[in-house]
Amino acid sequence: MNKKGLAILLRAKMRPIPAANKINQIQFPIRDGNHEPSQNRLSINMIREFEEVKVSMHSAISMNKTENVDAALNEFSVGYFRLSREMHKMLLLLLAKQYDVYRIQVRELMKQYLDIQLPTGLGEKAEDGSHTEEGSLSNFYRIERNLKDSLKPTYEVLFERLNTHPGGLKFLSIMRADILSILAEENTASLRALESNLREKLITWLSPANLELHQITWDDPASLLEKIVHYEAVHPISNLLDLKRRLGVGRRCFGYLHPAVPGEPLIFIEVALMKNVAQTIQEVLWDEPPIPEPEATCALFYSISSTQPGLAGINLGKFLIKRVIDVVRKDMPDISTFATLSPIPGFLQWLLPKLASADTFQENMLESEEEATLLDSSVEFAAGKNGNEIMLTMLTSTKYEWTKSDSLITALRAPLLRLCVRYLVQEKKRGKALDSVANFHLQNGATIGRLNWMANRSEKGFSESCGIMVNYLYSLEKIEDNAQAYFSTGHIEFSPEDVC
Amino acid sequence: MNKKGLAILLRAKMRPIPAANKINQIQFPIRDGNHEPSQNRLSINMIREFEEVKVSMHSAISMNKTENVDAALNEFSVGYFRLSREMHKMLLLLLAKQYDVYRIQVRELMKQYLDIQLPTGLGEKAEDGSHTEEGSLSNFYRIERNLKDSLKPTYEVLFERLNTHPGGLKFLSIMRADILSILAEENTASLRALESNLREKLITWLSPANLELHQITWDDPASLLEKIVHYEAVHPISNLLDLKRRLGVGRRCFGYLHPAVPGEPLIFIEVALMKNVAQTIQEVLWDEPPIPEPEATCALFYSISSTQPGLAGINLGKFLIKRVIDVVRKDMPDISTFATLSPIPGFLQWLLPKLASADTFQENMLESEEEATLLDSSVEFAAGKNGNEIMLTMLTSTKYEWTKSDSLITALRAPLLRLCVRYLVQEKKRGKALDSVANFHLQNGATIGRLNWMANRSEKGFSESCGIMVNYLYSLEKIEDNAQAYFSTGHIEFSPEDVC
Repeated sequence: MNKKGLAILLRAKMRPIPAANKINQIQFPIRDGNHEPSQNRLSINMIREFEEVKVSMHSAISMNKTENVDAALNEFSVGYFRLSREMHKMLLLLLAKQYDVYRIQVRELMKQYLDIQLPTGLGEKAEDGSHTEEGSLSNFYRIERNLKDSLKPTYEVLFERLNTHPGGLKFLSIMRADILSILAEENTASLRALESNLREKLITWLSPANLELHQITWDDPASLLEKIVHYEAVHPISNLLDLKRRLGVGRRCFGYLHPAVPGEPLIFIEVALMKNVAQTIQEVLWDEPPIPEPEATCALFYSISSTQPGLAGINLGKFLIKRVIDVVRKDMPDISTFATLSPIPGFLQWLLPKLASADTFQENMLESEEEATLLDSSVEFAAGKNGNEIMLTMLTSTKYEWTKSDSLITALRAPLLRLCVRYLVQEKKRGKALDSVANFHLQNGATIGRLNWMANRSEKGFSESCGIMVNYLYSLEKIEDNAQAYFSTGHIEFSPEDVC
Repeated sequence: MNKKGLAILLRAKMRPIPAANKINQIQFPIRDGNHEPSQNRLSINMIREFEEVKVSMHSAISMNKTENVDAALNEFSVGYFRLSREMHKMLLLLLAKQYDVYRIQVRELMKQYLDIQLPTGLGEKAEDGSHTEEGSLSNFYRIERNLKDSLKPTYEVLFERLNTHPGGLKFLSIMRADILSILAEENTASLRALESNLREKLITWLSPANLELHQITWDDPASLLEKIVHYEAVHPISNLLDLKRRLGVGRRCFGYLHPAVPGEPLIFIEVALMKNVAQTIQEVLWDEPPIPEPEATCALFYSISSTQPGLAGINLGKFLIKRVIDVVRKDMPDISTFATLSPIPGFLQWLLPKLASADTFQENMLESEEEATLLDSSVEFAAGKNGNEIMLTMLTSTKYEWTKSDSLITALRAPLLRLCVRYLVQEKKRGKALDSVANFHLQNGATIGRLNWMANRSEKGFSESCGIMVNYLYSLEKIEDNAQAYFSTGHIEFSPEDVC
């Protein structure tokens, strides 16, 4: 299909991918970042709508399983999408509180349990199973089972019913996105508990065993490719040629599909097959032509994007990377290096306050030689009483003026790379790397490799990390040990020399 | 492909369906009903093997999640398949007892919980969320979360790790089949708890949202078709023409596939498109040719088979039937009747003891007119002092002699059909239909339709139910009400006149 062909296709009305069962399926409205119904004050109509949704939610939870739960679920979800953000908040808080654990029953069962005598050594995992023990064990098992049930908040019924309802899994992920956004401004215990319960459920339902690895190619339906274009969060897809190239020779794209969310990967990763680990994203995205695939020795992961905001905190990426490594190794045994070319989203956000407060704390962020070079090169661009101040002025200039001067680029290279290593390797929060992308790869068992100067010259690249990118390395034989060391001691392995 | 072609294919070594990740996949040995290693006494070697499996099981459970759990799981599963049945029993009992709930901790948490004051009305699901309440709620949530964790037996870790391990879901279903078979002879509380825990897990993991409905056709891989031939449990597939016919014009076959068990449906259903609800299985299986599909007004479910003994008690069939009804309705709007032609597996098993003890309890199983006709027709075949005794003799004759005499067939028709209705509609066990197939369809919301005389003339048909088969009816608008009535009061709807 030529460029114009797909362009037309992408503009045309989306034809949903046929699913076997559409009769009782939740219909999703189109909803972007700004989904607020225009009217924000409560009108009689809105209150009436809210009451209806409340009633259908109650039915969906309290109906006997043989009643027409499907109809109630549909009514609830249609109604839910009509509500404003403020009403979502009211509804979700109500769900969290009124359908919580029934604590009187919990306490009753606990009292019963504590009344049973614990056979000697039973808590210590007794080995022999004499008949008396089996008898009293039965009592333990019975109350434990009941207690487990009564410790489940009532709203779990809603989650479970939605999960088995067509379209329900996706609806749950939208609902969780709403909960997360409400939590950001109103952090109440009951809403936190609701969120954590839903997260646990989603982790179970989205276990890798339920996900299908799918290689996304130019032969996939346009409706799926459109999603890739829409959700690519790391390096936006600029045009159709760009998309076609990312799916063509020397490139791979893999996604995790879930049977309940057809035609839309939950997460996808883009891979470039290369001779050496790339130093700049330009090589990957725009330099032509890709090398012939048999010459590749390196698989470079250059982008990983999640499509569902409501699945934040559910680490599907870890499993995806491991499976993709397995598939690529099997397919192309000559490929021995698995690395990423990754952004460092938090670097400048960490650096700027440090620079601003450096004088107050009498800390010089620059080494004396670095400072001298910088003062020399910056005369015509910025004034300041010392290196800290000049660096701050330059890095905060609106149009990244410093990136247009070779001498400034040269002068900033050494200090920024050095500070970036410090940021990645030494700066921690609760024993974990401060940078979110670093933390993601380190907990997967990767190590930090080379830092690449001027690796991403896009505005996003400059504003996040002064254009610096980093290669994380996945050395198969060391993944587990690395992950273990990072997990238990927070140790971060930094080995730039391992990158060829 | 012609008959010989597939015959050769089916005999040839099976090529596994390519799965993306085979590197760490559990390899399944071929295992049929009689999988006992030949040597049954304990030898030093066997004890050593057992100890090794025990150690790898312990590693798979107790390893930190960042250690090489995959290797331990593989070692455990390879070792498990080498063990004898006796050793499986030892191992599973050990798993149930030594990796059970740690009860000392449970009691400790309960005491903490009971010490917190329950805010007024909290157990009654308070609506307002004042700040003090949020504070004490946090404590409840915290201990409840910990308690839920500590109520999980340690062996859940093994189940969960296997579930996310390639091949692990299938391994778990084999393990559960072993547990069920051991429970049948040694019903201990801890093993029951192990089984029930694993069942709950499997129900979650095999939720319909995770299953893909697949229409099985003659174009499917031979390795998949081979499984259909192997697992068809209701009406064995006699030859390749038979198989091809069941997948051809006027027929449908649908299966549920799970991403973690590739190339093998967990359950499948066979459907015949017909003008009227079939009265005999012969019409469905052998009568040629099928009607042209546009003339069909009835979809007849004539066989439903589960392929995994370890998934017994996990009702996938209910969801499958509902989804298939949806698909067929959408595909062929002229089809308005959905019915089964089902065996009655427990009829004779119930009837024979009744006949044998009828005289003792002075009950005449036959009405007087029926008895007279039977005595008349049976003179040359069997002797007996009354109808009960003669009927018993005939129904237990080794080669079903009565089925070779028209007069006997006629004489037995009325009493057997009448008694069969009694068996299906009135005989209950704990408020549910005694017959397992009846119970399955009734709890799905079907009603009992027509009973069909001489509907299955195979040996299996005669030995189970004197050749009688029954049509269960799925009337879409009444499914939920029927299921509800059956569930709550045990009411069984019998409406033979609804079958056209």
